Amino acid sequence: MTVTIIGTGLIGCSMAYRLKETGFAQKIIGVDNDDRHLKTARRLGWIDAAMPLDEAIVQSTLIVIAIPVDATAVTLPSLLSKIDKQVLMDVGSTKGIICGLVAGDSKRGRYVATHPMWGTEKDGPEAVVKDAFKGRVAVICEKERTDADALQLVEELYEKIGMQLVYMDSDVHDVHAAYVSHISHIASYALSLTVLEKEKEEDAIFELASGGFESTVRLAKSNPAMWVPIFMQNKENVLDVLNEHIAQLRKIKSCLEKENFVYLKELIENANKIKRILK
Amino acid sequence: MTVTIIGTGLIGCSMAYRLKETGFAQKIIGVDNDDRHLKTARRLGWIDAAMPLDEAIVQSTLIVIAIPVDATAVTLPSLLSKIDKQVLMDVGSTKGIICGLVAGDSKRGRYVATHPMWGTEKDGPEAVVKDAFKGRVAVICEKERTDADALQLVEELYEKIGMQLVYMDSDVHDVHAAYVSHISHIASYALSLTVLEKEKEEDAIFELASGGFESTVRLAKSNPAMWVPIFMQNKENVLDVLNEHIAQLRKIKSCLEKENFVYLKELIENANKIKRILK
Repeated sequence: MTVTIIGTGLIGCSMAYRLKETGFAQKIIGVDNDDRHLKTARRLGWIDAAMPLDEAIVQSTLIVIAIPVDATAVTLPSLLSKIDKQVLMDVGSTKGIICGLVAGDSKRGRYVATHPMWGTEKDGPEAVVKDAFKGRVAVICEKERTDADALQLVEELYEKIGMQLVYMDSDVHDVHAAYVSHISHIASYALSLTVLEKEKEEDAIFELASGGFESTVRLAKSNPAMWVPIFMQNKENVLDVLNEHIAQLRKIKSCLEKENFVYLKELIENANKIKRILK
Repeated sequence: MTVTIIGTGLIGCSMAYRLKETGFAQKIIGVDNDDRHLKTARRLGWIDAAMPLDEAIVQSTLIVIAIPVDATAVTLPSLLSKIDKQVLMDVGSTKGIICGLVAGDSKRGRYVATHPMWGTEKDGPEAVVKDAFKGRVAVICEKERTDADALQLVEELYEKIGMQLVYMDSDVHDVHAAYVSHISHIASYALSLTVLEKEKEEDAIFELASGGFESTVRLAKSNPAMWVPIFMQNKENVLDVLNEHIAQLRKIKSCLEKENFVYLKELIENANKIKRILK
């Protein structure tokens, strides 16, 4: 099968690699506005050919949109109008607005709304991870609006690359993603800003940074070109969780101010319950 | 050399292992109020003998205090009164209050105030990491108040286990630790509480949790018996950084509320500058 990947960045190229490796695809065509990404993806062997979108479409069974969610919102409706029997899927971190945009489209059935829960703080074709996606969850939204053959093809793809499928309404997806992905990025950005701010008066503030700091701040390296559109499209849910997060921090702050260390211990014991989820 | 480790938990036993492995110590004596820890440490081979403190002291050249900082505050002054030519060091995450407690002690010179910047979210002798400490920074505070031979012994210890030495005033240490270690734990605890709170209405909220969430929430598994005393002893600094962190989160929140995505992008680009520090 020939698969076109629109967006030859971290996600697109990591998926391209896995699709070839597992035998799901025999040929990968890369499409990207950024010529440097296309050239790098070609040089590193992630894609077999680079060509303009319209040429790529006619040669492909499946087209994967792997670009920032604001660009997806623009591209998806026009892509739907161009395809015939091909299957179209996206891999973006928001689903509500995207699904809403094509809800009334006569070709809606050819589109499969998905979100594979995998990524790193890096971007671009140089950042490919060869065992990407394995063992993680892939969400498929609004499967009832998708043609049976299109759904089946995408299910096969995710199973082939070792992902576990979860089905969800697009709005429910966006709430869940805000809580277990988007807020982690915001917390990490804010932590980075906090310490960088202090660095202005204390040159050597990072001298003592250790593993714990690294792990909480890792996501702060993530690209705004990807994340600002996610926060825009999922604004209401992100604000809800951000308000709750600030409230939790204020609770801890109040314990410190009042020297209420009994309640602080209780809060931390509650936070420890995350061990039930993360082994 | 015989070394006594007071506190046979993660830090004490990981250090015990490294001291034997590198040939710095020939014999390790474990001291702990918790008999189960002592037995486990013995069974796993981290310590060669377990005995009461007073017996251990007379047999040792070096005594390492590796217990929570509230217990250190109690133990350190009484230990100083018991030793003769031995060297005493602690490895706790706060230094100001601890150093203050023994500042006027006639045997102050035998004590070396240190903080090796290594740890994990786990605790107890089962959690030992065999290549612990390597390549990380160890802070020594108030070296000018320490006898030359005591300082030299502890410097040799840290060099032997592969740590890079940094010298700091105890108050400066506490400010730095608040920014690059203590706040990470608070942010992580609050993030865990935020999502666990949501789980009360949304059963499956963790279904989509991926690598990013795991890394920001990992520290939320950390033991309150260790961390509450750290926050208590470093309260003022932790409150400063917590206020700054909440202010940064509110800036991001305001961008979302006002849909000021240009400024949000700018904030994230600033946060990205952490790449300069964390490769």
